[in-house]
Amino acid sequence: MPHSDDALAGAALLRAPAVDREALAGALRRFGGGAGLLLADSRARRSAGVPPALESFLRGAGARPTPAERRWLDHPRHHVLGSWDPRYPALLRNIRDYPLALYVDGDLNALQQPQLAIVGSRNPTHPGADNAFRFAQLLAGRGLTITSGLALGIDTAAHRGALAAQGTTLAVVGNGIDVIYPGENRKLAEEIAGSGALISEFALRQPPRAAHFPQRNRIIAGLALGTLIVEAARRSGSLITARFAAEQGREVFAVPGSINNPLAQGCHELIKQGAKLTETAHDILSELNFSGFFAAAALAREDPAAAAAPAAGMDKDRKILLDALGFDPADIDLLVGRTGLTPEAVSSILLTLELEGYVQAAPGGRYARVARSL
Amino acid sequence: MPHSDDALAGAALLRAPAVDREALAGALRRFGGGAGLLLADSRARRSAGVPPALESFLRGAGARPTPAERRWLDHPRHHVLGSWDPRYPALLRNIRDYPLALYVDGDLNALQQPQLAIVGSRNPTHPGADNAFRFAQLLAGRGLTITSGLALGIDTAAHRGALAAQGTTLAVVGNGIDVIYPGENRKLAEEIAGSGALISEFALRQPPRAAHFPQRNRIIAGLALGTLIVEAARRSGSLITARFAAEQGREVFAVPGSINNPLAQGCHELIKQGAKLTETAHDILSELNFSGFFAAAALAREDPAAAAAPAAGMDKDRKILLDALGFDPADIDLLVGRTGLTPEAVSSILLTLELEGYVQAAPGGRYARVARSL
Repeated sequence: MPHSDDALAGAALLRAPAVDREALAGALRRFGGGAGLLLADSRARRSAGVPPALESFLRGAGARPTPAERRWLDHPRHHVLGSWDPRYPALLRNIRDYPLALYVDGDLNALQQPQLAIVGSRNPTHPGADNAFRFAQLLAGRGLTITSGLALGIDTAAHRGALAAQGTTLAVVGNGIDVIYPGENRKLAEEIAGSGALISEFALRQPPRAAHFPQRNRIIAGLALGTLIVEAARRSGSLITARFAAEQGREVFAVPGSINNPLAQGCHELIKQGAKLTETAHDILSELNFSGFFAAAALAREDPAAAAAPAAGMDKDRKILLDALGFDPADIDLLVGRTGLTPEAVSSILLTLELEGYVQAAPGGRYARVARSL
Repeated sequence: MPHSDDALAGAALLRAPAVDREALAGALRRFGGGAGLLLADSRARRSAGVPPALESFLRGAGARPTPAERRWLDHPRHHVLGSWDPRYPALLRNIRDYPLALYVDGDLNALQQPQLAIVGSRNPTHPGADNAFRFAQLLAGRGLTITSGLALGIDTAAHRGALAAQGTTLAVVGNGIDVIYPGENRKLAEEIAGSGALISEFALRQPPRAAHFPQRNRIIAGLALGTLIVEAARRSGSLITARFAAEQGREVFAVPGSINNPLAQGCHELIKQGAKLTETAHDILSELNFSGFFAAAALAREDPAAAAAPAAGMDKDRKILLDALGFDPADIDLLVGRTGLTPEAVSSILLTLELEGYVQAAPGGRYARVARSL
């Protein structure tokens, strides 16, 4: 069998009428998943509490896999992941209206990684897009998977930042997974599927529709430990994602901006409502209690010697490096010359300092201090 | 007598050694103020609880008025206002270490007006200075007195904004009131004294000293209902003013900015600590519960007809005007033509809309809508 009956059952359930999650979850447990539910006889399903509207769907022709679904599942990277599957992401399973199944094009394991959602305007300012890229790059480099919506603007910058750090990124789309929207992001979608995953709960060939986006946004927020909003107008879709995150008890992070920038207003509104004002990647890691484990793990990957060094040694080298760094960008060779540290140590400490917001990467692999208190 | 003995007593007390406010307040009540305290005999003072260090000062030559003090007080605009004087500002009297007296060059009544302090960096960005000017102008136009420190940068912009609105502004300086610092602000200081007041608790001829500024900042915060910080670096004097305000239970307002602007970092730190994120003058008025009384009073001054109109009428005209306004600046004549409203009504509604952040003034007396939700 080229693809599992459970995958086909998941695809069928995504075409089913809206149904109470609790009633269905009981029935799925009873029948051991989606394929079991579809194969069970009608009487057994009714006595297991399957709601009549769903039962009538399951009895009809609509519950049969379509040729398009079978063909799509032939590709080895393509999956339909049922909510009864242990690989279904636990955080998403926790939201009230979790998707019954997910179309996934990419690596199923990526969905279980700890994630930060980064979302925002489709028409950001240039510095806004830069900020999204930089947050995604730093955080993906520290082991967080970056989840977003494949839209133009902030979403695109976030996906690209994660890819630039050789990190993992997930794109949840508001259309059938075989429809690429927006067309400008065809190549980006391919890159994302190649290293992370594209995700959709919409049936194949479904075009993007306005009503799909809030629904899609709940998945983005539901997958992630927290959601970072980089630039957003008032009453924009990004605020819907933030509201979903807050309602599910997830962290909401918002990047402030000039009061003369209309795209800062949505973020300011969120901060007034309790979102965490976010200036640096460190603000996010510390709130998510990630700084310890992930920073250390990432450092160990990059430079085992530095990670193993005693903290006092790190602190000393760190001070030497900061003293050697000016507000004019310097490259690593120059810093090695100024400090006498190894290139590996310089590179590793720079990453930590950048993460903490003390240092900023400049074009050409150079680094400069950022004016802030130490 | 050309000036009151109480004024000379106030000047003398400002030269006295630091003394417990509570012990002194009892003695001042007992002797009916500063002049009474100075004229009382030593035994009476000791039995009234005057601390020994102060008693020894009062008995010595140091307590006698200096010729410079007498000469300075000859000017009709010059006052030394004792803390026992009913005209001494009540909010300032409430702080733990209130000044025993204040040198005042200007209108004593101005000190009793409800005040907002606006402070920030001496080296602001251009938009930062513009924001300070605009907040001061709008709020002074709504009846709030703007208090600041006569420093270059944000302070200067705040004083100028209040003056541009024909409002009242107070400058509290960190040196003798007869010393003008910084020299660039000589003309501004004269304008402030001419309509509001210059204020100091330092003896005449005292130069500005680093240690004076935190002391001065407590007066700025102490006089005001709240303090707005517009741009401030981390660990800057403006944050000291904000801390004084917070410690006294006054409101702290902070204007957010780009995370790439080092002068936004102080404001962001304050917001993280609980300061109110402030985007518009309306944010301040509503927090201070000023929108009702002051907005109505100011409207009545500007346009009695509009203020007297029923709320429903205002709402209708307001909607007509908003519909007529675009994101390209338009002047009042054009808006009169588009709406059929009187120039007075257009002007009055524009002020309210500007105050609420829906409309922004553009050069040449023109106005444009600001992108935000209505």
